[in-house]
Amino acid sequence: MSNEVMPLSILTTGGTIEKIYDEFEGSLQNRETIVRNKILQKLRLPYTDISVKQIMSKDSLFMDDKDREYILGCIKETENSGRPIVILHGTDTLDITSRFCFENYPEIKVAVVFTGAMKPLGFDDSDATQNVIEAIFAARILSPGYYATFHGKLFKVPNLRKNKKLGTFEEIN
Amino acid sequence: MSNEVMPLSILTTGGTIEKIYDEFEGSLQNRETIVRNKILQKLRLPYTDISVKQIMSKDSLFMDDKDREYILGCIKETENSGRPIVILHGTDTLDITSRFCFENYPEIKVAVVFTGAMKPLGFDDSDATQNVIEAIFAARILSPGYYATFHGKLFKVPNLRKNKKLGTFEEIN
Amino acid sequence: MSNEVMPLSILTTGGTIEKIYDEFEGSLQNRETIVRNKILQKLRLPYTDISVKQIMSKDSLFMDDKDREYILGCIKETENSGRPIVILHGTDTLDITSRFCFENYPEIKVAVVFTGAMKPLGFDDSDATQNVIEAIFAARILSPGYYATFHGKLFKVPNLRKNKKLGTFEEIN
Amino acid sequence: MSNEVMPLSILTTGGTIEKIYDEFEGSLQNRETIVRNKILQKLRLPYTDISVKQIMSKDSLFMDDKDREYILGCIKETENSGRPIVILHGTDTLDITSRFCFENYPEIKVAVVFTGAMKPLGFDDSDATQNVIEAIFAARILSPGYYATFHGKLFKVPNLRKNKKLGTFEEIN
Repeated sequence: MSNEVMPLSILTTGGTIEKIYDEFEGSLQNRETIVRNKILQKLRLPYTDISVKQIMSKDSLFMDDKDREYILGCIKETENSGRPIVILHGTDTLDITSRFCFENYPEIKVAVVFTGAMKPLGFDDSDATQNVIEAIFAARILSPGYYATFHGKLFKVPNLRKNKKLGTFEEIN
Repeated sequence: MSNEVMPLSILTTGGTIEKIYDEFEGSLQNRETIVRNKILQKLRLPYTDISVKQIMSKDSLFMDDKDREYILGCIKETENSGRPIVILHGTDTLDITSRFCFENYPEIKVAVVFTGAMKPLGFDDSDATQNVIEAIFAARILSPGYYATFHGKLFKVPNLRKNKKLGTFEEIN
Repeated sequence: MSNEVMPLSILTTGGTIEKIYDEFEGSLQNRETIVRNKILQKLRLPYTDISVKQIMSKDSLFMDDKDREYILGCIKETENSGRPIVILHGTDTLDITSRFCFENYPEIKVAVVFTGAMKPLGFDDSDATQNVIEAIFAARILSPGYYATFHGKLFKVPNLRKNKKLGTFEEIN
Repeated sequence: MSNEVMPLSILTTGGTIEKIYDEFEGSLQNRETIVRNKILQKLRLPYTDISVKQIMSKDSLFMDDKDREYILGCIKETENSGRPIVILHGTDTLDITSRFCFENYPEIKVAVVFTGAMKPLGFDDSDATQNVIEAIFAARILSPGYYATFHGKLFKVPNLRKNKKLGTFEEIN
């Protein structure tokens, strides 16, 4: 029983982590999710059955409360299955979206772990793979509630904010 | 205070994870530790201050109780500093060494997380980086005791054994 | 004698190949040259002594004849040392700059090989490393004149143009 | 016409370049060819149509004249198609095999380029990809005859030998 495969959902919303380089435009864009091909396929997760669902494809600077309402709706829908949830999200408003969920639906019954990246996952020195590994690991073991993982650190929502100068997140009280 | 850097110790003992290819011999060998240059330098860990100490350099198939006594001695020495500990260890007897520590010194006052890899860290599809990321993350947040992390899963020592057929670890009761 | 180290110059002008991701701006920019750290340090070139000189840092769409005059001046200066030359250049006007050199200074006495990339060198699936390996290899063995290498193919200047649809270069007569 | 796709054959014989890590044995072995998945799929070669054929799977230290006779037979068979040929070969006797071909069949009508690697292609700092890029590039542009490429340098067979101390090849007269 203890070796059962645990189902886990990744909901992708866009953000730096999944920006793709368009060779014709010469620019970085949020299009389709690439976390499966570029990260998950390189990991070994024999005890985790991951489903990936793209629910949005936005730079988080351009998200508004309607978007956050929609994200929370997707979380609630996934919650029914009992699966822990990882949310890939732009770092600029990751704290706002996670706080929005915490404040509007504190009674969440699964672990929801937000993460993102400072550098898109296609770069060879991106922090995306590290952050996703940590988020999946955390989502598997944490009790129900909202969290974020970033650069080796676990945050309890809403006690975090982006530190733009250092290019990471920090705790607030 | 909550953004303080946490000191953490990695003790390396050899094993597949740190086997290095010798171009002159054409073979894989345990020599010096390379976890800092090949893994840690590529991670972003602004809140973790990691010291790496090579305490042994052995294929774990060739470890005996004297070696395990020595490893436990190093753990006790590090424990005094209060730092959580990650142990890099060969997978063939990782379960034996961790059980040895658990049985001989159950009163450990820090988190001690064992990990290793099926494929040496120099390979582009090695599982070493993933396992090390998980072990560091786990060591930072877990309460005192002995654990192992491997392929996304957290194990409580001594409830694990290697599954050679699947090339991973599994829980036992 | 035959095992002597051959000096070779790389002149960098900017372009997609050397665009760097700025984590604060979230955008790709031409700044300093990174070809040494991100490409050359990973190659084995025991018989080639490469000097890298950044002579410009421009998206080639914004180059004008003054810029091309300047690039040609740098080529002439390097030519005196007898070294073959590799020019890293944006792909959008690589054909124009190379033709400019060919028409204004056909009497060049060393091999000059232009190359660039469709995807910046920091991406894990960039074509930059391949193109640079080919350009260095070509510059070492070709007779004096102007060339371009791209995606496995050698071009004689001025018989090339960018094929934007296919994202590569093609021969013209 | 000048943009036609050029057919090219890669014949693989084993050697360090294609040694694969066996996670169960914990050792490096020559098994099936992996050059297509691990190298060719990452290159951009819109003007080259490469066929890969595994003709042997041996550490070149264990090759004898019968093996070399067989390799030469495969070269002759491929020669009829007019395609240039790249041979992946262990470095320990690459000079002997290439000299064998040169002495027994000097009238070859296509370019045949031998290469290999000091470090198997699965390592992230392997020289395999560089050497293969150079060999393909060379095979496309060279006149008929036997060559080797290694670490940025082109060799004319039989004027080469391995320099074990430096871990590369050098010219001999």
